[in-house]
Formats: sequence, C-alpha cells, structure tokens
Amino acid sequence: MKLSQGVEWGVHCATLLALAPAGRSVRKEGLAGHYGLPETYLGKHLQAMARAGILQAVTGPKGGYRLARSAEEITVLDVVEAVEGAQSPFVCQEIRQRGSGALAPEQCRRPCAVHAVMARADEAWRASLRAVTLADLVDRLPPGIRERNTELAAQAAGPGSPAGPGGPASRASR
Amino acid sequence: MKLSQGVEWGVHCATLLALAPAGRSVRKEGLAGHYGLPETYLGKHLQAMARAGILQAVTGPKGGYRLARSAEEITVLDVVEAVEGAQSPFVCQEIRQRGSGALAPEQCRRPCAVHAVMARADEAWRASLRAVTLADLVDRLPPGIRERNTELAAQAAGPGSPAGPGGPASRASR
Repeated sequence: MKLSQGVEWGVHCATLLALAPAGRSVRKEGLAGHYGLPETYLGKHLQAMARAGILQAVTGPKGGYRLARSAEEITVLDVVEAVEGAQSPFVCQEIRQRGSGALAPEQCRRPCAVHAVMARADEAWRASLRAVTLADLVDRLPPGIRERNTELAAQAAGPGSPAGPGGPASRASR
Repeated sequence: MKLSQGVEWGVHCATLLALAPAGRSVRKEGLAGHYGLPETYLGKHLQAMARAGILQAVTGPKGGYRLARSAEEITVLDVVEAVEGAQSPFVCQEIRQRGSGALAPEQCRRPCAVHAVMARADEAWRASLRAVTLADLVDRLPPGIRERNTELAAQAAGPGSPAGPGGPASRASR
C-alpha cells in the first residue's frame, strides 16, 4: 500500500498557492521549479486538483493556478482525494460467500465484520486528514519561511485577475 | 493506494483458526477450500503471518496452521502488518529541500508539517485496527455462524498436538 508522490507534491503546491498574492495565479513551471518537480507529471496532478474544485486553472499565456476557495476551506483530505481518488484502499471481495464454507446471501444482510473494521479505520484516516486545512499548514511553516515563501510565490505569480483583488477565495473566472 | 487481497484472506483465515479446537491446526488446503482461495497464494500470506508470530506452522503430513497466541492477543493490525508490512503509505521525499525554493538543512530540523499530518493520519488508521482483536471478530459473527464455523474448523483440523489441549494460546511446538 503506497500513496502516490503526487500527494506530497499537491499538498506542498497548494500550500504555496495559499501564500500567493490575492487573485493571482502561479504557472505550473513556477510551482515545479520551486520544488524541483517534473513539470509534465506535476501538471497532471494540478489538473486533477482543478477538476476536484480545489484549484482554479487560469488560461492564457500568463495563466496558471490559484486556489479555487480560501485556504481555510481546503483540507489536506481534499488534496489527497483529488490526487489519489476517494476509494477505500480495502476492497472487500466477500470471501465469506465463497468456497465450501460459503454463507448464504440471507446470512449476509449485515456487512462483513472484517469489512466494517477496515471501513472504520479508513474513516479514521480520512477524519484525521479532514481536520487539517491549508491555512493550518501555512501556520505551521517554520519561522521566517512563511514570509520567504510568500515573497517567492509573489515573484512566481502572474498579473492579477481582471476581477480585481478578490483573493484566493474569489471564484471570479477570467 | 490499495491493500493486498491477502489482508481480507488473512483476517478471515485467522478468525477461522480462532474457532478451531484447542491445540489443533488446520491445513492450508482446508483454509483455502473454506473461502475458495488459491492455495499457493494463500500459503505465502500464511507463511508471512507465521513469520510475524501470529500463526504457528505445524509441520508434518497432518500439520497446518494454528494461532500462535490467543485470539484476544491478536489484533487486526497484527494481521494487516504481517501481510502488508508496517511502513506508512506516505513516503516523504522532503521536496521542501529541493528546487529553487529549497530550505537549508538547518531550517528543516523539525519534521515537515505535511509529513507530520500524514504520519498522524497513518497512526489513526493503525490505532483503529489495533483496537479490534480476532476475539472481537468472532463475537461479531452473525447468529449461528460462529457455531457452524466452529464445526467446520473442527472438521478441517488435524489431530491434537502432543503437547496436549493447550489451546490456541499454547506456544508448545511439535
């Protein structure tokens, strides 16, 4: 069982976008360069995050990505599920209904206890990731790093949106 | 991110072994037949569970597997880690130290916040699985199924250990 590297990339890039100036987007190349990541592969994850409604893709030669809602409203789980999908890592094959010891369907009206235990653990994992937002991660940056990354994000960011300084929470499109 | 099918197989088989008569082992073929599983592939998981100290492999023509300790002392996490390994699904590549935005090593004395969040979620998952034992799973079997599976486990079980009816908790070897 292994999570895609895209999870680490996605959470770090979204946290950097949370520091970008209000309403301005950062190009894929800027995000890739900041963390030394392969552009094409990172691009696929950024697109997945846009499809999931976490990022807003700004088109045009000076386009890029910005947060689609405020950093307080995006959880680490949102990013993880955008990159990895939301399906549980445990896939129940209902083996209690197979083989010489097979239970009859009417004996299986309640979910299998093994399945239920795995589902509860999966929900515990998701609840833990749901409890942390991008804003929390920004708050946990080491002293000085927040200011430095804010400056780097501003350098990497393109011009502001015609919709004005709506900030990352702005849903204005261009 | 996907767990091996062996997790479902391992937990179900261990729960069936918890119902076998005290001190008696069940052959791999008996376990595979009960759940309609491929013998060779199941055998690899049973061996992993024996290496992890959950099962005891009883050698000889009438040998097989029995629990190495009592069902109250074996958690679902024990089985999951025996089959899947105990490593976290999140592998931190420390991308905060890479690229044009790289932090210096002295700025990274504390673990990365992203890494810490993922580690906490992983621990929540493991804690949930650690809270349930094979004895709990036996208790959760639907009415009548416990008795039926106890009978089937007895039919599949080989003769008792020369060490006597020590029960599944007995560590006596043969």
